[in-house]
Amino acid sequence: MSRKFDDLISKVNSCSTKTVAVAVAQDAPVLEAVKAAKERKIANAILVGDEAKIKEIAADLDMDLSEYEIINETDDYEAALKAVKLVHDGKADMYMKGLIDTKSFLKSVLDKEAGLRNNRPLSHVCVFEIEGVDKLLFLTDVAFMTYPTLEDKVSIIENTVEICNACGIDMPKVAPLAAVEVVNPKMQATVDAAELTKMCEEGKIPGCIVDGPLSMDLAICPEAAAHKGAENRKIVGDADILLFPDIHAGNLVYKTLVHTAKVKNGNIITGTKAPVILTSRSDDFETKVNSIALGSVVAEALRNK
Amino acid sequence: MSRKFDDLISKVNSCSTKTVAVAVAQDAPVLEAVKAAKERKIANAILVGDEAKIKEIAADLDMDLSEYEIINETDDYEAALKAVKLVHDGKADMYMKGLIDTKSFLKSVLDKEAGLRNNRPLSHVCVFEIEGVDKLLFLTDVAFMTYPTLEDKVSIIENTVEICNACGIDMPKVAPLAAVEVVNPKMQATVDAAELTKMCEEGKIPGCIVDGPLSMDLAICPEAAAHKGAENRKIVGDADILLFPDIHAGNLVYKTLVHTAKVKNGNIITGTKAPVILTSRSDDFETKVNSIALGSVVAEALRNK
Repeated sequence: MSRKFDDLISKVNSCSTKTVAVAVAQDAPVLEAVKAAKERKIANAILVGDEAKIKEIAADLDMDLSEYEIINETDDYEAALKAVKLVHDGKADMYMKGLIDTKSFLKSVLDKEAGLRNNRPLSHVCVFEIEGVDKLLFLTDVAFMTYPTLEDKVSIIENTVEICNACGIDMPKVAPLAAVEVVNPKMQATVDAAELTKMCEEGKIPGCIVDGPLSMDLAICPEAAAHKGAENRKIVGDADILLFPDIHAGNLVYKTLVHTAKVKNGNIITGTKAPVILTSRSDDFETKVNSIALGSVVAEALRNK
Repeated sequence: MSRKFDDLISKVNSCSTKTVAVAVAQDAPVLEAVKAAKERKIANAILVGDEAKIKEIAADLDMDLSEYEIINETDDYEAALKAVKLVHDGKADMYMKGLIDTKSFLKSVLDKEAGLRNNRPLSHVCVFEIEGVDKLLFLTDVAFMTYPTLEDKVSIIENTVEICNACGIDMPKVAPLAAVEVVNPKMQATVDAAELTKMCEEGKIPGCIVDGPLSMDLAICPEAAAHKGAENRKIVGDADILLFPDIHAGNLVYKTLVHTAKVKNGNIITGTKAPVILTSRSDDFETKVNSIALGSVVAEALRNK
């Protein structure tokens, strides 16, 4: 079971080396992360994009391109389709966004011929190691699904449980979060949380333990949970998956953690046939490398499924 | 201008000593905070409640009751009314919740004869000093207003600007937060944020600078704001007031800060004629003392208004 990002890296190093296919690879921060991932034996890469520009950036980064396969394609969307097809065809293990807008990138992910759709809604998971918290936390959805319905939330949980399993967490605890711990009919987040809890008890959401609504302290802080007297709770400050009521709550917590706490984090898109890495320009270098490591772990798990 | 809680305490110490009226004062954690506030010359207290029980708790706390006025009233709601009337009549400067449920306490705040209503909606503000952030942050609303309308948000801003002013921040910067920085008609939080910004530009929300929608990093992190290129922004990581889209987002961020970052914080209810202190049992000792200090600063400002 991975409790820290270093555990994930060790897990990666014990498997066969995975390969990331980069769409429109002429992107300096992405190439820098790809280079570090290679050096740290986290993953190899196939670079699809404008070869001349890739070479130019690689020279700046002191990056030896002889170690990488490069596929020259100057049209951005064609490059994306070629890159995603490499993953679709099993020639690469995961798909990563380079210098292409998010909308076009996601379109390529969902392409019927070359893409990675899995008949499930896509969702986003951000994995955090936080100083003072004794386990990895899986935050979802902080970037992709805006206002998930109850049905969407079930899909998000299923997607994220798969990622937890890949990280060695067999029966993750899922906390549907809200401002309060009791159901209030005027707060849909609490109604949904109670319904998800019931569905899990009835076996409709397998492979995990759902307990909500939960406030953040009851979800992540064992002392707070003990102090509030949480005898009847299945989660007492030991949640693995933090399920947010909507994208505002999720994203605001996500960025609060990044900017005020001591953290390491990485993120991927889930619900696809293979891991999809969509880091944003505001993510720092280590976050990009961690995201590739997370993708490798998930790719290994999906391969063995 | 106060940038830290110590600045607020200094501000308190430079004014005449304020007095807090405690409703149903037989509450150990509240008495402990009241005792510390007295010792640190932050505020005196009048204790209204069951005198016998107050004496019992005081003995345990090694608290010299001869330094406090005690009003014996064993009926809880009567005790609350007597305590709030002390503030209403100017015999005390702020009102604090003891061992009484929140609903009854708020009923006493809103009592037409003895209460502190001000013809404005009440809102809650939580003031944070966060390691790595160079100024106090005023989070609202994380505990009281659930799903504020645009009109409610205007009131929340007005209430919170008053608190900022009391803390020496003359023209606070208000960030209406969301997951994204651009208006999306499908996200009401972003629509409201843009509307609040416009209203402020038109002079309809005076005494502050509103700029939204803003993501958390653009609101509190100057480096992130610079990195994202925020030339046309009035707020570049230097917000004072963080206005949340709803109570879930606010409360989840609030508890994330308390449990993962290095912080000091205090909170009060605003929109009343005098400060109202409603700490929860999950607030730690220092938070309660900080809340009394905040109340003292606000009481001084309201007196001089």
